[in-house]
Amino acid sequence: MADLKSTFLNVYSVLKSELMQDPAFESSDDSLNWVDRMLDYNVPGGKLNRGLSVIDSYRLLKGEELSEEEIFLGSALGWCIEWLQAYFLVLDDIMDNSHTRRGQPCWFRVPKVGMIAVNDGILLRNHISRILKKHFRGKPYYVDLLDLFNEVVEFQTASGQMIDLITTLEGEKDLSKYTLSLHRRIVQYKTAYYSFYLPVGCALLMAGENLDNHIEVKNILVEMGTYFQVQDDYLDCFGDPETIGKIGTDIEDFKCSWLVVKALELSNEEQKKVLYENYGKPDRANVAEVKALYKKLDLQGVFAEYESKSYEKLVASIEAHPSKAVQAVLKSFLAKIYKRQK
Amino acid sequence: MADLKSTFLNVYSVLKSELMQDPAFESSDDSLNWVDRMLDYNVPGGKLNRGLSVIDSYRLLKGEELSEEEIFLGSALGWCIEWLQAYFLVLDDIMDNSHTRRGQPCWFRVPKVGMIAVNDGILLRNHISRILKKHFRGKPYYVDLLDLFNEVVEFQTASGQMIDLITTLEGEKDLSKYTLSLHRRIVQYKTAYYSFYLPVGCALLMAGENLDNHIEVKNILVEMGTYFQVQDDYLDCFGDPETIGKIGTDIEDFKCSWLVVKALELSNEEQKKVLYENYGKPDRANVAEVKALYKKLDLQGVFAEYESKSYEKLVASIEAHPSKAVQAVLKSFLAKIYKRQK
Repeated sequence: MADLKSTFLNVYSVLKSELMQDPAFESSDDSLNWVDRMLDYNVPGGKLNRGLSVIDSYRLLKGEELSEEEIFLGSALGWCIEWLQAYFLVLDDIMDNSHTRRGQPCWFRVPKVGMIAVNDGILLRNHISRILKKHFRGKPYYVDLLDLFNEVVEFQTASGQMIDLITTLEGEKDLSKYTLSLHRRIVQYKTAYYSFYLPVGCALLMAGENLDNHIEVKNILVEMGTYFQVQDDYLDCFGDPETIGKIGTDIEDFKCSWLVVKALELSNEEQKKVLYENYGKPDRANVAEVKALYKKLDLQGVFAEYESKSYEKLVASIEAHPSKAVQAVLKSFLAKIYKRQK
Repeated sequence: MADLKSTFLNVYSVLKSELMQDPAFESSDDSLNWVDRMLDYNVPGGKLNRGLSVIDSYRLLKGEELSEEEIFLGSALGWCIEWLQAYFLVLDDIMDNSHTRRGQPCWFRVPKVGMIAVNDGILLRNHISRILKKHFRGKPYYVDLLDLFNEVVEFQTASGQMIDLITTLEGEKDLSKYTLSLHRRIVQYKTAYYSFYLPVGCALLMAGENLDNHIEVKNILVEMGTYFQVQDDYLDCFGDPETIGKIGTDIEDFKCSWLVVKALELSNEEQKKVLYENYGKPDRANVAEVKALYKKLDLQGVFAEYESKSYEKLVASIEAHPSKAVQAVLKSFLAKIYKRQK
């Protein structure tokens, strides 16, 4: 595993130097240094789970060890997903006016970067096309890969659009908009598609599959992504800050979290008033009121119930799938996230 | 011609409503209204020359009248170029902190838009993929179309990168960086590729050509785009504001214009000092000094010389091309811009 990760990181260096040596651009030293620094700052610093899971999934689909070339190609696709995430994060941070990301200042807040980060975002997105073209142009699934990445980006974009419009912009903070269906849409578009479906979609294409025949796989993965995000929302409030590595601020930030949606659903009029009065305020006293209500409504129990129900449903859907290899891929994703504490 | 334009505008309405009815997104009314308004604000308001020239070029390549379907497809590709330009302009305006565009406030300055314009930019870019997928997925040249658009976007991005880094960011205003070679690179990447090469590239693909066999056509078009931009720089200072529809501010804005590059080249030490002291300052007196020097150096004569030389060179390259149909396309572009006054 440590070995796979170091191979994976080596591929990053290869891809980066290919991008920077691209003869199509007469780059100056200044701009090469910029791109070098921008990539190192934004691309490889995450957990790399999405990227690594392409190789894992491909191996499971193939049912045997991969050749060196297959590992390289799987890694290249994995890195395309990491590049995609970097692209989302760089631009999202600008739109959300965020401050930190992965424990360091957001890229656009780095001195001298500013709005050049918009261009860097586009550059990250284009690097994906260039990596795909360089290494996959001759493959029979090249068009499908392009379409897959385009589709995922479209979903993400539609989501960004929707979330910005519906929750932050139009009205002021308005809890009445927070419903399970909004939560579901946000999660689906914003996380599930690229974190769960995309890696498996890439692996399926490499294995020679036609994605049109795998709508059910997509549905299961989107379902799993939803479950994953609900866990995230739960841990933000009830997780151990030591373990998850950050102090949650969803309540202060007026996030459309699964918890607040559930709380609204379960509250009587009086409890609703508590939510309306305290949700989305920076003061510790307000946050404490919200947390107290969450506990009173037994959201911990509600979550435990949700978690086991989701798990059962997912296992049932997975076992209904005709291919054992596909089942193995889906089960490996599920095993990684079931009852996670971080 | 008026007829072609109205057909072209009809296709815009068709494409827009297809994009908005896409069943892949469960859009809310709010977000549909947003996209509707965003598209109308940013996409169709330009001169549409780039878009229209796809159809013209395709007709010339084919050598006969186009069928209704061919006109529709040519128009759809033409609109992809207009969408691409909207995408560039929306994001460039944010990065340049601009105020107006096509006589109205830049999109990000419209109340309630702000940084959502970043997302709108991405949305515009993705619309291109969706239009291409919907109407060209089955065509033998689909992959080449995707690659062509990706390549052009990459060039544009690399340029944005370079220009931002080299001219605005690193040093403060530093005229010594303004050379003919920098000017050439900026123009090539920023204008020539998508304004000149892209429409013809689209038409060649529709006509069944392989772009790898048309490197010379690309070179000629990039050359023509460079000539076009030099005209633009010239008209900004010496054109008739009534005719060109705006009052040029390249001098005030410290632009890397062909004029200042030429002036630097032709100046003696004393004259260079005048440029260093007056270029890029908002005051009318400074601008007048620069203009007086331009006249003293006879930049009008230098430009006339450049214009006729460029024209001759372009005509010679065009006439050396083996295909009469391709010659016709290139000549039609050249005829539109030679000695233009606006």
